[in-house]
Amino acid sequence: MYRIRFLSSLLLFSIHSFPIHASQLQKPFLPLSSANKMVAAAIQQCERDGYEVSVAVVDKSGVIKAQARMDGAGAHTIESSFRKAYTSASLKLPTLKMAQIAAKDPELQGLHHMASNILLLGGGLPIIIKDEVVGGIGVGGASGAHLDEACATAGLISIQESK
Amino acid sequence: MYRIRFLSSLLLFSIHSFPIHASQLQKPFLPLSSANKMVAAAIQQCERDGYEVSVAVVDKSGVIKAQARMDGAGAHTIESSFRKAYTSASLKLPTLKMAQIAAKDPELQGLHHMASNILLLGGGLPIIIKDEVVGGIGVGGASGAHLDEACATAGLISIQESK
Amino acid sequence: MYRIRFLSSLLLFSIHSFPIHASQLQKPFLPLSSANKMVAAAIQQCERDGYEVSVAVVDKSGVIKAQARMDGAGAHTIESSFRKAYTSASLKLPTLKMAQIAAKDPELQGLHHMASNILLLGGGLPIIIKDEVVGGIGVGGASGAHLDEACATAGLISIQESK
Amino acid sequence: MYRIRFLSSLLLFSIHSFPIHASQLQKPFLPLSSANKMVAAAIQQCERDGYEVSVAVVDKSGVIKAQARMDGAGAHTIESSFRKAYTSASLKLPTLKMAQIAAKDPELQGLHHMASNILLLGGGLPIIIKDEVVGGIGVGGASGAHLDEACATAGLISIQESK
Amino acid sequence: MYRIRFLSSLLLFSIHSFPIHASQLQKPFLPLSSANKMVAAAIQQCERDGYEVSVAVVDKSGVIKAQARMDGAGAHTIESSFRKAYTSASLKLPTLKMAQIAAKDPELQGLHHMASNILLLGGGLPIIIKDEVVGGIGVGGASGAHLDEACATAGLISIQESK
Amino acid sequence: MYRIRFLSSLLLFSIHSFPIHASQLQKPFLPLSSANKMVAAAIQQCERDGYEVSVAVVDKSGVIKAQARMDGAGAHTIESSFRKAYTSASLKLPTLKMAQIAAKDPELQGLHHMASNILLLGGGLPIIIKDEVVGGIGVGGASGAHLDEACATAGLISIQESK
Amino acid sequence: MYRIRFLSSLLLFSIHSFPIHASQLQKPFLPLSSANKMVAAAIQQCERDGYEVSVAVVDKSGVIKAQARMDGAGAHTIESSFRKAYTSASLKLPTLKMAQIAAKDPELQGLHHMASNILLLGGGLPIIIKDEVVGGIGVGGASGAHLDEACATAGLISIQESK
Amino acid sequence: MYRIRFLSSLLLFSIHSFPIHASQLQKPFLPLSSANKMVAAAIQQCERDGYEVSVAVVDKSGVIKAQARMDGAGAHTIESSFRKAYTSASLKLPTLKMAQIAAKDPELQGLHHMASNILLLGGGLPIIIKDEVVGGIGVGGASGAHLDEACATAGLISIQESK
Repeated sequence: MYRIRFLSSLLLFSIHSFPIHASQLQKPFLPLSSANKMVAAAIQQCERDGYEVSVAVVDKSGVIKAQARMDGAGAHTIESSFRKAYTSASLKLPTLKMAQIAAKDPELQGLHHMASNILLLGGGLPIIIKDEVVGGIGVGGASGAHLDEACATAGLISIQESK
Repeated sequence: MYRIRFLSSLLLFSIHSFPIHASQLQKPFLPLSSANKMVAAAIQQCERDGYEVSVAVVDKSGVIKAQARMDGAGAHTIESSFRKAYTSASLKLPTLKMAQIAAKDPELQGLHHMASNILLLGGGLPIIIKDEVVGGIGVGGASGAHLDEACATAGLISIQESK
Repeated sequence: MYRIRFLSSLLLFSIHSFPIHASQLQKPFLPLSSANKMVAAAIQQCERDGYEVSVAVVDKSGVIKAQARMDGAGAHTIESSFRKAYTSASLKLPTLKMAQIAAKDPELQGLHHMASNILLLGGGLPIIIKDEVVGGIGVGGASGAHLDEACATAGLISIQESK
Repeated sequence: MYRIRFLSSLLLFSIHSFPIHASQLQKPFLPLSSANKMVAAAIQQCERDGYEVSVAVVDKSGVIKAQARMDGAGAHTIESSFRKAYTSASLKLPTLKMAQIAAKDPELQGLHHMASNILLLGGGLPIIIKDEVVGGIGVGGASGAHLDEACATAGLISIQESK
Repeated sequence: MYRIRFLSSLLLFSIHSFPIHASQLQKPFLPLSSANKMVAAAIQQCERDGYEVSVAVVDKSGVIKAQARMDGAGAHTIESSFRKAYTSASLKLPTLKMAQIAAKDPELQGLHHMASNILLLGGGLPIIIKDEVVGGIGVGGASGAHLDEACATAGLISIQESK
Repeated sequence: MYRIRFLSSLLLFSIHSFPIHASQLQKPFLPLSSANKMVAAAIQQCERDGYEVSVAVVDKSGVIKAQARMDGAGAHTIESSFRKAYTSASLKLPTLKMAQIAAKDPELQGLHHMASNILLLGGGLPIIIKDEVVGGIGVGGASGAHLDEACATAGLISIQESK
Repeated sequence: MYRIRFLSSLLLFSIHSFPIHASQLQKPFLPLSSANKMVAAAIQQCERDGYEVSVAVVDKSGVIKAQARMDGAGAHTIESSFRKAYTSASLKLPTLKMAQIAAKDPELQGLHHMASNILLLGGGLPIIIKDEVVGGIGVGGASGAHLDEACATAGLISIQESK
Repeated sequence: MYRIRFLSSLLLFSIHSFPIHASQLQKPFLPLSSANKMVAAAIQQCERDGYEVSVAVVDKSGVIKAQARMDGAGAHTIESSFRKAYTSASLKLPTLKMAQIAAKDPELQGLHHMASNILLLGGGLPIIIKDEVVGGIGVGGASGAHLDEACATAGLISIQESK
C-alpha cells in the first residue's frame, strides 16, 4: 500500500547540525565583492581596447557569481563568456591552453564534447587563491580569442593585493 | 466563460515609469514590415534558383521576427535558417566569414561550440541600419552555403531604400 | 601566436548598409550602466533585509545585461532570478501579478508552460522607460516572493531620475 | 570560392525510387501560400484589437511553415505561439478545449507534461482540409487566451474559399 | 475542396470550415505498414550480417513512424538510428553522402551543427516515392557506417513493388 | 571506400573479462520479438476501437525496444507513448495509478517533475515476467487515458503464454 | 601512444595567484569520505525498510559528490534523487517542507518551475556543518516521500560526530 | 464526449504476470556491490597517481549504478565520467579506441554527434562478464586520456575473481 506520512519539520530541523572535524573542511572561497571587481576591470579593459563583450565570473563549481554584457555585445556572449569561465574553473587551466591541446591531436577532439558547458576557446582563466582554484573568469565578444583573454587577465589583476 | 483582466496599464505604468536621459537610450530597430519583406524576397530568389529553403529574420537579440518554410523544404531548415540568422545578428558578421575563420585555425574549433544557437555555415548575414546591426537573416536548404547566402543577400537588398 | 583578422568593417558595412526611414526605427534602450545600478540596489536592499539572493537584469528581448549572486545564495537562484526577469520583460507585467492570474483559473495552468524560461512567481518586474518596456529585473532567494519583489522594486527605484 | 556539388539526382533517385500503390498514399497538404495568408490575417486581427502578438502556422507534423512576431510582442511569444500551433495540429483540437479538459480532472494534470512542445492554453486551432488535419495555427501575446484565439480564428477564416 | 470541421463542441467547431482548391494539396505519404516492413527487412539483413542494431523509419517531417532495437544493441542506437533517418528525410540525401561533403571542406564543418537531430554519418537513406521524399530510414550499431547503410538499403528494397 | 576495423574482439575480451559469481547476476530480459508482438497487438486494439495512436515498448531501463505510430496519429504521441512506457517501467506501476496518487495530495505535485521523461497519465503499464519488471508499454493518442490503457493491456495480453 | 603534457603548474600558478585576505575566504566543505558514508547509510536504511532506491549527495553548489542506485531501483531514481539533493542544498530546506509550502498557496505553483533541477518532493535534506549548508542528500524510489526522507535522515545521522 | 474511466488497479495487477520461456530471457547483470568496488578502486588508483577525478559506473543501458567525485575534481567531471561510461557500455568498446577510429577518417566525424551522451575520449571501458557487456566504467579529470583510462582499468581489475 502506498502511503505518505511526514515527519514534523520541527523535529527534522533539530537533527540537521553535525559537528565534524572542521579543520579539514575549510576551503578558500571567492566573494561577490571580488567577482564584481573582476567583471568591472575586464569590461573596462575591453572598452579601452574597443570591443563590446560579456564577462562572467563563476565560483569553483562553475555557478555564476557575477556577469555583465556591454551595450552592443551580442546575445551569444552571455553564453560564451559563461562557458569559458565554467571551463577554466572546472579544468583549472586557461581555455586557450585547452584549445591548443585539443588542436594538436585529433584523438582529443572529444575534449570539445566532455560536458554541455565546456568551451575550449581562448578567453577563460582560472581564478587561483593560495594555490587553490576558487573560480573562473570568461570573456566573449572581442575580435579574437587572445583579445578576450587580455580582458580576462585585466580582471584577474584587479583583485591582486597591493602590498 | 473564463476571463483575464489585467490591472489598468495606466496604474501599472505610473508605478514603474522612470524618466531617464532618453537621448542616450534610442537605438535603431527592425520592424516586422521589413522582416516580412526580406523573407519574401529571399524566398523569391531561392524559388527562382530552384531551391526549397527556409528563411528566418531575427532582431538584434536573435529572437525571430519572421520565418517561412517553402513547400518541400526539410524540417531541419527551420532550425538551420534560425541559427544562421541568430549567429549573424549576434556576431555581426556573415556566417560564411565565420566559417572561414574557424576553418583556418584548429585552435578556433571552439567557435562552433560557443553557444547552443551558433551555426558557422554560410547563409546568414547581419542586417545593418545606419552602421548599427539591428538583426540577421538566415537561409537554409539550398545545395550549398553560397547558394543560401545568395538568397539571404536578395533579402537584404529588398529593404534598401530606393532613391 | 595565433591571430584572428576580420574583413575590414568598412567593406562589410558598405555592402550591407541600408538607409531606411530611421524615424520609425528608434526604440528606447536599457544601458549596462543602469542595469548595474539596479543590480547593486536590489542586492543592497536584500542584504539589509537579511536575505541572500541573486539579481538579474535583462533587456527587452530577455537577454541578460547584468547578474550577481550574493555570497551564500543557492545555485538555483541564478536560474530563478533570470527567469523572473525574462518573464517580466516579455510579458510586461510583474511576475507576482501573473502568478495571481494563473492561480485563479485552472484553465490557465498552461501559462506556466508557455516557454522554457517563463517563471510565474513573484520577484520579477518590468523596467519601463517612457511607457515602453525596455527590460526586466528578477530577484530570487529570499524567503518569500513578496520579499524578492521588495528588492526588485528597490532596483527599479535606483534608476529613477532625481528632479 | 568553395562549392558543394551533389550526386546527380537522377542517379540517386533511380536507386531509391519505389513504385507503390500511390492511390493510398495521397494526403492533403498545407501550402506556404495559405500559411502566409493565415499569419497575415491573424496579425491584422490582433492589431485591430490592440494586441502585440506572435502567430505561428505549423504543418501536420508540427513543423513551422510560417511565423511572425509583431513589433513590441515579447520574446516568449515565439515559443508560446509555436507550442499552441503544434499542440492543435498534433492533438487535432483547439488548445482551449484541451485546457478545459485538463482543468476538470486532477488525474489529467499529466496532459501538460505529455511532450516538450505541448501547451494547453487557449489560442491554438487545428487547420482542417477535407476532414483531415493538415496543420495548426497558434497565437500568443494578447491579454487573454480567448483574445489569442480570436486572432487564430481570423487566420483560419482567411483561407476560406469565397464562392 | 477545402474544409475545416471539428469533432465536438458544436459552436466552436462550426466556425472553422474552409473550402480550398484541393488539387494542389495532395502529397504522397508513407504508411505505417511500409515503415514496419522496412524496419523488419533492415533488421533481418543486419542479423544475417551478424550485427546488433536499431532501425528507425521517419516520415518526411522527421517524426518516427516505426523503430526497433535488436537484443544486444546499445542504448545509443535508438538515438543514432533516429538521427540518421531524420537527416536523410530532411536533407533528401544519404547521410554517407553528406558525411563525405562535410569531410572534404573544413568550411562546411558547420553542417554537423545545423540542427539538434542532424547526424552526418553513413547509415541513413531517404525514402522516395514517385520522385518525392516521403521519409527516411536510419540504421545504427553495426561495426561501420557502410554496414549500417547496407541494412538500410535492404529496408528500402523491401517496399519495392514486385512486377 | 572507407572502412572501420575494430580490434580483434578476442584480444579485447581477454583483457576485460571477469569471472564473477554468475549465479547472482542473471536477470529476466524482454526480447525484441515480444516487444514487437506487444506493439502490434496494442495497435490492433486501438485500430479496432477507432483511435490513431503511438505505442512504445521499453526495456527495464526505459530504453525503447520497439515503437510505432499509426497513420494519422499526432507527432506528440511518439513522445507521450514513450514517456508512459518509461514511467511504468521505472516506477513499476501503471501510469494511471501514479496519476491518481499525484492527484490526491497537493504535496505530491512534485511527482510530475521527478525526471524529464516521467509522465503521470493513464496509458502506461509495467511488463512483468516472473514477478520482475522487465519493461513497460505506453500508448498515446486515444481520446482518453483509459482508452490508451485498454490498448496497452491488449499489448500485455499478447505475450501471455498459452498453455 | 599519444600524450598530453600541461604547462608546468608552477609557471601557471605564478601568473594567476593572487594573495587576498584569506581570513574572509574560508568556507566549510563536504569531503567525499563523508558523502560516501552518507550514501552507504541511506542505502542500508532503505534496504532494511524493503525499498530499492537511489541516493545522491551533492556539494553546496548542487554538483554530485557521490551517488548510487540499488539493484532493482528504476532508472528515473538517478534523476529524482539528484534533484532532491540539489533542491535541498540550494534552498537550504528539506524538500518536504518546500512541497508543503508550494501546496498551500496556488500563487506559489511557480516554485515547481524555478529551475530545471528543482524538485519539491519529500526525500531531500540539506547537509549542515557548523550552521552552514555544505550540501544536500536526496533519496528516490521508496513507496512514499516520507520513506525516502527516512533513508535520507539515516544518511545525515551517519556523519554525526560521536562524542 | 471526452470521458475517463479507469480499470480497477486490482484487476490490472492480476493480469500483469506472464509466464514466458524464461530460459531465453536470462541476462548477466552488474550488481551495485561490484559497481561500488570498481568506483573505489579507480579512485584509489587516481589518488595514488596524483589526480583528482570523477568515476562513473553504468549498467548496460547506460544508467548510473555508482558515481563519485574526488575532493577537488572539477564540476564537469561528473558529466565527462558519465559520458565515457555510457559510451563504452553502449558501443562495447573502450572510448580511446573509438576516439582513434573517429580521428583517422574525416567522414567519421559524425561519430561524435551520434547521441547526446556519447563522448569519444579515452577513459571509458566496457565491463564484460562471461563475454557479455553488462556496463561501463568512465573516469574524467586526470591530465590525459590515457591516465583516466589507467584508473578505469584499475576499476575493472578490482572485480576480477581471484582463483
